[in-house]
Amino acid sequence: MAAPDSNAVIAALRAAVLGRQGNIPLHEPWFIGNEWGYVKDCLDTGWVSSAGKYVDRFEASLSGYTGARHAIAVVNGTAALHICLKLAGVQPGDEVLIPALTFIATANAVSYCGATPHFVDSAYATLGLDPAKLYDYLADIAEVRGGMCVNRKSGATIRAVVPMHTFGHPVEIESLLEVAGGFRLEVVEDAAESLGSVYKGRHTGTFGKVSALSFNGNKVITTGGGGAVLTNDDHLAKHAKHLTTTARLPHQWSFIHDEVGYNYRLPNINAALGCAQIEQLSEFVRRKRELAAAYRNAFFGVSGLVFFTEPAGACSNYWLNALMLDQASTGCRDGLLDAFNAHGIMARPVWSLMHRLPMYQNCPRMPLEVAEDLERRLINIPSSPFLVATP
Amino acid sequence: MAAPDSNAVIAALRAAVLGRQGNIPLHEPWFIGNEWGYVKDCLDTGWVSSAGKYVDRFEASLSGYTGARHAIAVVNGTAALHICLKLAGVQPGDEVLIPALTFIATANAVSYCGATPHFVDSAYATLGLDPAKLYDYLADIAEVRGGMCVNRKSGATIRAVVPMHTFGHPVEIESLLEVAGGFRLEVVEDAAESLGSVYKGRHTGTFGKVSALSFNGNKVITTGGGGAVLTNDDHLAKHAKHLTTTARLPHQWSFIHDEVGYNYRLPNINAALGCAQIEQLSEFVRRKRELAAAYRNAFFGVSGLVFFTEPAGACSNYWLNALMLDQASTGCRDGLLDAFNAHGIMARPVWSLMHRLPMYQNCPRMPLEVAEDLERRLINIPSSPFLVATP
Repeated sequence: MAAPDSNAVIAALRAAVLGRQGNIPLHEPWFIGNEWGYVKDCLDTGWVSSAGKYVDRFEASLSGYTGARHAIAVVNGTAALHICLKLAGVQPGDEVLIPALTFIATANAVSYCGATPHFVDSAYATLGLDPAKLYDYLADIAEVRGGMCVNRKSGATIRAVVPMHTFGHPVEIESLLEVAGGFRLEVVEDAAESLGSVYKGRHTGTFGKVSALSFNGNKVITTGGGGAVLTNDDHLAKHAKHLTTTARLPHQWSFIHDEVGYNYRLPNINAALGCAQIEQLSEFVRRKRELAAAYRNAFFGVSGLVFFTEPAGACSNYWLNALMLDQASTGCRDGLLDAFNAHGIMARPVWSLMHRLPMYQNCPRMPLEVAEDLERRLINIPSSPFLVATP
Repeated sequence: MAAPDSNAVIAALRAAVLGRQGNIPLHEPWFIGNEWGYVKDCLDTGWVSSAGKYVDRFEASLSGYTGARHAIAVVNGTAALHICLKLAGVQPGDEVLIPALTFIATANAVSYCGATPHFVDSAYATLGLDPAKLYDYLADIAEVRGGMCVNRKSGATIRAVVPMHTFGHPVEIESLLEVAGGFRLEVVEDAAESLGSVYKGRHTGTFGKVSALSFNGNKVITTGGGGAVLTNDDHLAKHAKHLTTTARLPHQWSFIHDEVGYNYRLPNINAALGCAQIEQLSEFVRRKRELAAAYRNAFFGVSGLVFFTEPAGACSNYWLNALMLDQASTGCRDGLLDAFNAHGIMARPVWSLMHRLPMYQNCPRMPLEVAEDLERRLINIPSSPFLVATP
């Protein structure tokens, strides 16, 4: 099979985005709803900070949209992950299984708990954690002792596993829940990229014990910076709110805090933006799926690569669209990235794998052939919802 | 001396705020400048998140206003403190000297570093850390060994001292710098409450190695939620920016991070609010000082308490105004608080002292008589800048 020709690739991309010329960013926010009205209301009333109705309303909207019983708005996706791991009981010295192919926040959140990330390989079909491989690996290196999963080599408790729904594509979450159940692992979903993505009719982020969402500026919807913890557990939800608001006990005027808490609450002005954005989420997802369909068609005839499509059982938000180079064409990745960017088309490779970074290079890991192969082959391309024509 | 009569106290307060009736909150944001214009510009351009000109501009304004060489905007004051302590070299197992009389964030930030807060007593004149008492205490329990301050009892390194400018009133920072120098302690200023407060002509937050500001909704100026790190050190400033933006190495498209970083950047939309607010900071401080003068006059004739005034050498922002009960009247505190709040006047005591909280009760501490006395005697009263008449 021929290597991809950069002119052909760029022509196909421009065709998919209806001939749009000039600079095309990777993913931009889009404010075409009630953003200004709600934000102005915050400014007019002076309620921009911790107190204010938009935080409650945004949490209710998130709960309604995802079907999670509770949503707790926080300051960003990293904070959400940190709190999720705390709620899952991650202790200093524990190990937490995370994909090597993920954004840095997944690994950092584990570090913040004083725990060690333990890297797991990915599956070609989902780009996310591979449950079958994880099972074989755990059967080899771990055992359940006193109701806990223990790493036989390090002696550490493996407390949790954190599947990440890469680029919005759901992992095989049902198989993963089974593996996790067998090994007594808590499941924390990193759903930072997958708001709007559904697996077998159920929203991502509602399968694990707790889950993290992100509303960073490059996400499907944005609050400037923001995130949320999702859970169906009433007690965990209450604890999440407590932990993210400095663990202060409710009282009209006294300041008593009963544990080490965090200042992770989402300001009301950012929540106001979220309330306007979530009203448009279904439309954004519809458009992003339409853009993905256009890309698939446009790249069908281009040699040396394929457009990555959602896995079986999933209805993905296609947060970040991705091209996958043929195995024979991996040497072309950086040339293609340079060509895209030279033409004003923002494109990027997947994140450097976690075990390549200096602070995580000595962490435990399984063989990571698939993640390493994907790293050489994936290219993210522009994915903003306004790149398709209005209906 | 007679105990304070709650009716007389409330009448004095209402007189100071020009007879204003009804509910009076403790401290409310005030948006009378370019807030709308700048925030709308963010929404119109789509730059609400990490990229955008308002973060740079806000940082330059903070630097200009305070005289600190560098200001690095972050997501809140707690995050700023956490980063300051990291920059000061605080390691797991270290001890960090902080006042027992402070907001919980000071102690929590120490915990986030895996270090232990070590509580210090306050001075009556400043409500902040007492340098003379600290000297005597350290001379007793610590020694300098290999260029580091070591707690002889615990064996731990005492890495830093964190003076907090309580309610905006500057501590005796020059004496403290001397004590810290003698014992080889890094000085991290917790200036969360003191933006606009000056000590001997120099802005608080510019004396220590690094300092933390806060722009929470209840502060002198607000960004919804926000904070900043101040420093005069070019290298530390660069490191602060790196640590607060996930420690990612600059590159057009690759994602390489070289240490465990944090997602602490301030979103552009919050920085836009900050740009508008800081334009009004001098006027807010002028008004707050005028309100303090009105309170001082109004409470002059009320028995059983005094209005707390700024210490010698200081020009305070009077962030939160405070009444101090006479020693004989401490039993009246909660009754007065209830009376204030029953009349719609939001008032509160000072924070519960850190060593009383369950997670910090076993931390090392010096005798804390003054802090404990102040805790029984202080009452914060409404302090919004709009409580005085326009000029």
